[in-house]
Parts: sequence; C-alpha cells; structure tokens
Amino acid sequence: MFAEILNKVRLDCPLVHCITNYVTVNDCANVLLACGASPVMADDEREAEEIVSIASALVINIGTLNSRTIPSMFKAGRRANELGRPVILDPVGAGASSLRTATAMDLMREIDFAVIRGNISEITSIAGGESKTRGVDASASELLDGDLPADVISLILKLREKTGAVITVTGPKDIVAGEKDLYIVRNGHPMMSKVSGTGCMLTAITGAFCSAAPSDIAVAAASAAGMFGVAGEFAFERLTSEGGGTSTYRSYIIDEVSKMTPEKMREAIKIENR
Amino acid sequence: MFAEILNKVRLDCPLVHCITNYVTVNDCANVLLACGASPVMADDEREAEEIVSIASALVINIGTLNSRTIPSMFKAGRRANELGRPVILDPVGAGASSLRTATAMDLMREIDFAVIRGNISEITSIAGGESKTRGVDASASELLDGDLPADVISLILKLREKTGAVITVTGPKDIVAGEKDLYIVRNGHPMMSKVSGTGCMLTAITGAFCSAAPSDIAVAAASAAGMFGVAGEFAFERLTSEGGGTSTYRSYIIDEVSKMTPEKMREAIKIENR
Amino acid sequence: MFAEILNKVRLDCPLVHCITNYVTVNDCANVLLACGASPVMADDEREAEEIVSIASALVINIGTLNSRTIPSMFKAGRRANELGRPVILDPVGAGASSLRTATAMDLMREIDFAVIRGNISEITSIAGGESKTRGVDASASELLDGDLPADVISLILKLREKTGAVITVTGPKDIVAGEKDLYIVRNGHPMMSKVSGTGCMLTAITGAFCSAAPSDIAVAAASAAGMFGVAGEFAFERLTSEGGGTSTYRSYIIDEVSKMTPEKMREAIKIENR
Repeated sequence: MFAEILNKVRLDCPLVHCITNYVTVNDCANVLLACGASPVMADDEREAEEIVSIASALVINIGTLNSRTIPSMFKAGRRANELGRPVILDPVGAGASSLRTATAMDLMREIDFAVIRGNISEITSIAGGESKTRGVDASASELLDGDLPADVISLILKLREKTGAVITVTGPKDIVAGEKDLYIVRNGHPMMSKVSGTGCMLTAITGAFCSAAPSDIAVAAASAAGMFGVAGEFAFERLTSEGGGTSTYRSYIIDEVSKMTPEKMREAIKIENR
Repeated sequence: MFAEILNKVRLDCPLVHCITNYVTVNDCANVLLACGASPVMADDEREAEEIVSIASALVINIGTLNSRTIPSMFKAGRRANELGRPVILDPVGAGASSLRTATAMDLMREIDFAVIRGNISEITSIAGGESKTRGVDASASELLDGDLPADVISLILKLREKTGAVITVTGPKDIVAGEKDLYIVRNGHPMMSKVSGTGCMLTAITGAFCSAAPSDIAVAAASAAGMFGVAGEFAFERLTSEGGGTSTYRSYIIDEVSKMTPEKMREAIKIENR
Repeated sequence: MFAEILNKVRLDCPLVHCITNYVTVNDCANVLLACGASPVMADDEREAEEIVSIASALVINIGTLNSRTIPSMFKAGRRANELGRPVILDPVGAGASSLRTATAMDLMREIDFAVIRGNISEITSIAGGESKTRGVDASASELLDGDLPADVISLILKLREKTGAVITVTGPKDIVAGEKDLYIVRNGHPMMSKVSGTGCMLTAITGAFCSAAPSDIAVAAASAAGMFGVAGEFAFERLTSEGGGTSTYRSYIIDEVSKMTPEKMREAIKIENR
C-alpha cells in the first residue's frame, strides 16, 4: 500500500509547484527530483496561478515569507483548489512571530489543504494551543517517544477537524492523522534534526506523493513520511561507516531517496495504524 | 582551442555578476569558483549597474524572477552592453508562464546577448515556436540522441538570427550555434538531469568562459558545455564506484570542475563542428 | 578559554536570527546546527523585531541586500540593541557598490555591533580607507601571511574605535581586534577561499559564540575563527585522502564543525595574543 506510491511518482513524474523559503529551496528541488518528481519554484504574483495550473501539486511553505510572496501563496492556493490539485501547507515557524501564525491561519481559512505538515510546536500554534516555538525546530522532548500524550493527539484531531486536512506531525516519531486513520510512523533518525530542511523536504515529497495517490491522502502522507524516514536510516548507516558529519548526512539522505525502491520501503517501513 | 579557455579563466579570475534564481544560486557561485572565476550576486536595482561595471561578464537567469529583480536585469544588461561585457541569458522556465516568456522576449529585444542557453522547450518558446515546457526541465525525448531533427535546427538558427546571440541548447547532446559554426557537444551524462541546477551552472560557467575568449563566443560556449559535460562524466565514474546518489553526484560534478585541467579536457571532450 | 565556548553553545543551543543573503543562507543554517546552535532566518519588516526578541543573537549579512530587507536589518538591529543581544555585521561586498558601502555605514551609525567580520577589502571600505573590493572575495595578496602591515592594523583599530565593535578580519590569517586584545588566528586552509560562503558561515558561528560568552566578545570572536579554521584544516586532511574537490570540501568543513570537540580545539587552535 505505502510502497506502491513511490512507483507511481516515478511513472507520473508529477510537476510540483513550490512557493517556499530561500533557505532550503535547493534541497526541496533536489529531493523532488530524487523521488521522481519534477520541481518548479515560482513565487511572483503574476505567474503563481499560471504555474500552478500546469502542476500536479502545490506546496506552500511559509519560511522566509514576505510581503511579496504572501499574496502569491493565496493566489496559487485558490487556483489549485479550483483545479482540484492537492495543496500542502508547511507552517514553518508558526508561533515564532504573529506574521507567521496569522498567515498560516489566514491560509487555512481561505484554502483547502490536503495535508498540513509541521513539528509539534508549529501544529500547536496553528491549532490554537499554547505554542512553545523557538524558531523552526522542535526539541526532541516536545514529542515523546513513548506513548502519545493525550493532549497532543487531541490538538492534532482538533486541527484536522477544523481544516479537513490530513495532519502530519513530525518528530522522534511521526503522526499522520486522516479522517478515519491515525498512522504512527516509526522511521527516521534523531540526526535528521541536525540538518536544516528535513521538514521542508518531507513536505515537498508529500506534495509529490499526494498527486500520485489523490484518493487516499492519509496513506500518501504516511508513505512519504515513512519513505523519507527510511532514507534517513539508510543514510545514517552509510554515514557512520565513513565517519561523516551533518553535511555529508544531508547529502546521503537525498542520495537514499534517489536510490529508494518499493522493495526497500516494504522491508524497512514501520507504520502502525492506530 | 577549447581547452585553452579554461587556463585563461584561471589566469584572469574574471568576476561574473549573476542575477539569478534563489534555487540554484549557491551552486552557481561554487561552480564559478571551481572553474577559476569569482562570483558576485547582486539583484537590487540600485546597485545592479555599479556591480556589473566592475564585472567581466553578466549572467541573467530568469528562474524565480520577480517584480523587484526584473528591472535590475534590464538595467544591468544595458550597462553591460554599453561597456562591451558579454551578457548571457538563461530563460529558465520560458513557456511555463507568460511572465517568463514575455520577460525573456523583452530582454532579447532590449539587450544584446552573447549567448542564450536553455533546454529545447525554453529555446522553442522564445524562438516563437510551440512550447512544451512543463516547468524547468526538458524531457529526454525532446532532444533526440540520434540525428538532429530539422525543425530543431531551424528553430535554433531562427533564434540565432533574431538575436545575434550564440545559442546553446542542452540535452542528451548539446548544440552550440554560432554565426558560422554549429558545434555538437557529446559530453555529459543522463544523470545530470536528476540534479537541480546543472543548466544554471553551465550558464554561469559560460559567462566566465565568454569573458576569457570574447573574440570567439561560439568556441567559448562550446568549450564551457564540453568542460561541464566532461565533469559530469568524471563525476559519474567516481559516483558509481562508491554507490552514491543524486546529491553526492551534484557535489562530485562541482568537484570535477574544480579539478579540471586542459589536459583532461583535451582527452575527453567530444565536440564536432558540423 | 577558547575551547569552552563551544561546550557552552552546545549546552545553551542559542537561537541565532540571521538576516542574510540567499546565496549562502543554507550553509549558514547548517553550520549553526553543526556547532550546536539553532538558526532562524526571517527578513520581513513585519516580523524582524518579534523574531529577534526570541533569539539570543542577531547576524546581519548584507550580501544580496535589497530595498525590502534593508529596513528589516535596521528594525531587528535596534530591537536587539534594546534587548542587549549581541549583533554581528558581515559587510559582504562593501566597497563593490555604493549601496552596500552606504548601508554598512548607516548600520554602523544606528546599531551597536558586538562584532564586525569581513575580509580586508570590506573592512577597508567601511573604515573609510581606499577599497580594492572586486565582489565578495579578497585575494590572498591582500592580507600578507608574514608580518602584519602597519596600515592594515591601523585601519582595523580605527574601525574598532569608531564602532566600539570587535573587528574580525579574515584572510590567510585572521585578526580579531578587541578593546584590549589583538588576537592573531593562524588556523584555516587556503582552499577555504574556493568555497562560497566560508566568510558568511564564520559570521553566523560568531553570533552563536558571542551569545554564549557575552562578557568577552573578543575571546568569543577569536574562538569562533579558530574553531572554524580548525574545521577547515581537518576537512582538508580528509579531502586529500579521498581525492575530492571544492564541493566535497564545503561539506567536510560543515561535517568537521559538527564533529568538533573542545579537546580537538585545544590541540589544534593557534591563537596568539599580541
């Protein structure tokens, strides 16, 4: 179920339109190519609607948002909704500034998102809870590795109901909450949090996977999280055998996405349906 | 003939001013350093003319163009023309939006380009043909590896005549069309299309090479394409011996540019003058 | 003294707010994570003050400055001053355009900087001397490896007095001029100048180190320069044993920062107090 979507992406080669931050945009472009999709980055108001109309999915990432790109996000999002293309939101840094929180909230009001992916701080902020965001990374302690705290689950479900979107919360384990299913993804490696942009990359991949499996967005989102986590595990194995550090690890993660196969996913993926 | 230009770049260390997209700008900066040039990225309207006046070449790349950077492209381009510096155009994504196509057309009307480099979709769009652009990458089938289709050649020649620029069309093989010569460059590796920014990097290198050989721009453009293709071949050899993926490949391509010598170029370059 | 600050950064995990260029921003984010800090990049006028108020340090880098980001630099800088957070200036390309030189001068007038880090061309420009900037890199000859030229020292001291900031001048050897101390840092490797962004990365690290040692900014700045230089040396050793080029070198530098320990620093750091 999860592994087939990768094949579909490689067959379809979906064009994924990203309006995203300039910090990790290159990694997003390269990881999209690595998983078999094709990236197009375009954030000018005058071309956002036209570009999204030739794309199979739209990814809106609010890192380094600004007065020029925010209107493009709305225009592209509305057009994607009209055309029935999946739209993914990455509320980078929501909770860290009122501009980011308010923009994420406004986007959620105006645009139907297929998936919203963030860390627990960001998801808490936009779900209307108390945010503890300090920038763009969530500390490990914010998402316990043991049992899921009830308040975290209830927040995620609240946001899911409010938006109708599948919610992906990433951390030591990832949670993907769909309408009927709640997936727990136990893949990945703690060192991924030491690489800038792993969250943004997963969001971009989620866009590609959703375009390949529009009839079950929760499965697509869980599959993306599992696949990327598996890539992080394989990359860590290769890294430790060679003595590399965080920058080599970044490269290896993208490498492993480019070398991923459904077979490897089937063997390594650890997704539980609660 | 082709290999000497690399030496010249390394001796001159030309400053190359790039107004380019934020997706692949870091790769452009690093590949310019790797080939012996020096990059300067500057896109504000208030400094574009001043920066270009201390540079040896100007590269205009319209990926992620926007309302703020477009006027800077025109200002810098006109100034470079006045000063007799070579100006290179990379019409990234022309055909994908009317903003990009129109901006490329306007630039070609107002500015004399030494070289225009794009994939066949982009070149088709700006030559006034039927475009099939879907984003920024050309599918392999768009440029046949066997005989050159007559309509492709005729389009390239049409654009060359219209603009007076040398036209570089990259794909499974590269075509460099100058006033008198038509070079076919049979270097490179298909995996280069799986790395974001290989086209942008070649455009940046072309700027450096043109500044080093202003008297024969077609030779400079063909040399740049051949050198970069050879780097792609060497990088692929190193990659396969180590089992890497697309991100490591990206690094190795830039590595091989930094380790390139005229001797290596002479041995490996496959350029045919039709 | 120098090595302890790294431990402090790893314990504090300071949030470092960067308003920086889009060329090397990803490297700055990754090197901050590698040294134990946490990056947040935010340049919109409407969030700059709010973001800096949750950060432990602010880094202002004027590469690819523009009409939209310049006001954010001033707002964030003033707010950081009010809150007593260290602010670091990287005057990238000062001397190459009047916009850059004037912006750096205006910033120095309005904002109290803890550290200003640049190459000798940039520092010369903003100290009011004759600049020889050609873009963003300083040629090796601009900073002699032998004895310090008296006019270089006098310029640095002049800028220190004018601004009250610690001045870090990087080159074949780095000079860190504080109120009482003048440190000469003899770490690093010439190949670092072939990687785009090594200067920007050091500036970002300097922000993290200053937040960890606010009571002695000169020691923090010298420690950052020494640590980064040591990483460059270790990276070069690993590189040559594997036959890599400049892009692999870039990765290895960040790798070595992520693997740095106070013990390694103590052994390899070469800092002299004049």
